Amino acid sequence: MKELSVYTDRIKNFLENYFSRDSLNISNINRWGMDIVEKFKNFSLKGKMLRGALLLLSTEMFKKMVTPGDVKVASALEIIHSSLLIHDDIMDRDLTRRGGKTIHSQYTDIFKDLSKQEAYHFGESLGICAGDIGFFIAFNILSESELASEIITSIVSLWSEELSYVGLAQMEDLWFSTVNIDDIDINDVAKMYRFKTSRYSFSLPLMTGAILSGQNERIVEVLKNLGEDMGLLFQVKDDELGLFGSEYKTGKPVGSDLKEGKKTIYIIQILHNTDKRDREEVINIVRNRDSSPSAIARLKSIAKRSGAIDDINTMFEDVKAKCMEKISQLPVDPAYKERLRKITDFIIKREL
Amino acid sequence: MKELSVYTDRIKNFLENYFSRDSLNISNINRWGMDIVEKFKNFSLKGKMLRGALLLLSTEMFKKMVTPGDVKVASALEIIHSSLLIHDDIMDRDLTRRGGKTIHSQYTDIFKDLSKQEAYHFGESLGICAGDIGFFIAFNILSESELASEIITSIVSLWSEELSYVGLAQMEDLWFSTVNIDDIDINDVAKMYRFKTSRYSFSLPLMTGAILSGQNERIVEVLKNLGEDMGLLFQVKDDELGLFGSEYKTGKPVGSDLKEGKKTIYIIQILHNTDKRDREEVINIVRNRDSSPSAIARLKSIAKRSGAIDDINTMFEDVKAKCMEKISQLPVDPAYKERLRKITDFIIKREL
Repeated sequence: MKELSVYTDRIKNFLENYFSRDSLNISNINRWGMDIVEKFKNFSLKGKMLRGALLLLSTEMFKKMVTPGDVKVASALEIIHSSLLIHDDIMDRDLTRRGGKTIHSQYTDIFKDLSKQEAYHFGESLGICAGDIGFFIAFNILSESELASEIITSIVSLWSEELSYVGLAQMEDLWFSTVNIDDIDINDVAKMYRFKTSRYSFSLPLMTGAILSGQNERIVEVLKNLGEDMGLLFQVKDDELGLFGSEYKTGKPVGSDLKEGKKTIYIIQILHNTDKRDREEVINIVRNRDSSPSAIARLKSIAKRSGAIDDINTMFEDVKAKCMEKISQLPVDPAYKERLRKITDFIIKREL
Repeated sequence: MKELSVYTDRIKNFLENYFSRDSLNISNINRWGMDIVEKFKNFSLKGKMLRGALLLLSTEMFKKMVTPGDVKVASALEIIHSSLLIHDDIMDRDLTRRGGKTIHSQYTDIFKDLSKQEAYHFGESLGICAGDIGFFIAFNILSESELASEIITSIVSLWSEELSYVGLAQMEDLWFSTVNIDDIDINDVAKMYRFKTSRYSFSLPLMTGAILSGQNERIVEVLKNLGEDMGLLFQVKDDELGLFGSEYKTGKPVGSDLKEGKKTIYIIQILHNTDKRDREEVINIVRNRDSSPSAIARLKSIAKRSGAIDDINTMFEDVKAKCMEKISQLPVDPAYKERLRKITDFIIKREL
């Protein structure tokens, strides 16, 4: 996104340099140290840097500048995000990510002399270690960012709290994938979204920017709420793309959420709006993880007829209006408000 | 250990209270929040609290008191240790720990409606999340300990660096378990021990105590070296108990290290001292993971005859002397020096 690319470049620059430094202690511990630095460099640089860029935009809109210390904090957040993805990919048994092999699947390749099952186990185990190490590298960069200690401590406090919620939401998400769609309460899914996506991917970066620029608690609270709204738009749009998005544009197969058994708000909303006649068909498609073109077409036509798509679009408009209202309250230059508005708009208009 | 029990009790007291607070935000996020608080309470309270207690002893010997903030830091370290064990148990596929089921095996039980393999996968996945969450809970307690921000930042910096080394050493340990004993360099094992055990379990707690009491870098460095020596004694003694220890006393089956394919310094030292005649027999016992009483007895007799046990005992005496020398240099009351000496002595005399 144009509005964020200037920040993305600064983060990439830091990560590139950080993971290329020969003086990095971690490279000199053992054979795995050198290797993990290389893996984190390649993996983190391929990310979209949404969270780190939002963090820097938030910092800059309050203090009119971004220091090297701020860039370190944003980069640390991107490393944490990479670690979360490494662990998630083990849990979801995904073999590809960011256009390449997942980290645990790269490690699996090392053990080619063992049986397939043993190799996979050791690959997963090294992947668990790599994720853990990423968390610690990130907190280390944060603690050595040369910002004021009070600021570092506030960020450690905010991040550690929100990240523990991300973990709990991930547990809930895993749980949902093992139960019937009928047994899931839409409010529980909404709560899961709030902590797994909204608070983590939007509120946390925006709030961190406010902490870095010394804003008061009232502003931090407004940004938390703005982030929750933006995150909801983002996640439900993501659901829509995961169900009806074109493979050409999203890079994911059409109906991939169905195939993976994901219980998204989008699907639950369709079921919610559907009358008795269509209900069984929707449940069957979901239960059988049927992502055939005809099933997707049927689901789309039921979703339209039932009014589910209209309801979701109305929700998009309502939540978007709430975002615009909160953005207008912020004590920042109009140019930054305009950027935040464009980002909000992009979230629901994007096709990938 | 008598010398540490006064500190252990304070940590247990904090953990008991912390994980019983209804006001704990984490309990109110979702069904997993309440559950994880309960699991961490039970699991962490069953630990020996060696690391937390050493941390408080180190704090007290410099500043003659231990504050509630210091106890929070020690408790945070114990929670991190629990998290490392949760992840280790997944990697080692261990089903019991601290006299009960491992955490991932407790989660596996929840998925009894799934196939055995699927249930185990989801159990492991929730275990990965639980370990991650423990790290974040610990950093949250640390950041909210109400100590000076400079102190908190220094501790975050020290811990995050050392913990990334622990992860790398764990990767090396996993790797060793998949290769032949002949292909392992004893220096690589010694390095693995240094970061997985010595620095983490001894240097880090001692150094944290020095940071909490505002000691200078020279003292912190002496404690780092003292911890490395104490840790080496601890780990090689652990190897000895894992190989020749009595099940009645250690709670682990005799020869359990052999059975698990662990490549300990103790075993490598035996192989190193053994002449051609016995070499093949030792390698066979190790390769076949043969922990039968007769194999253990043979190994012990070869170890004695070859001089390996004498060499290890000489090493114990040398390293112990180095510890005593460093302890005598510390600018603390003689009573605390005496405690450290007793702890060092206990490490190599213990039978469990």
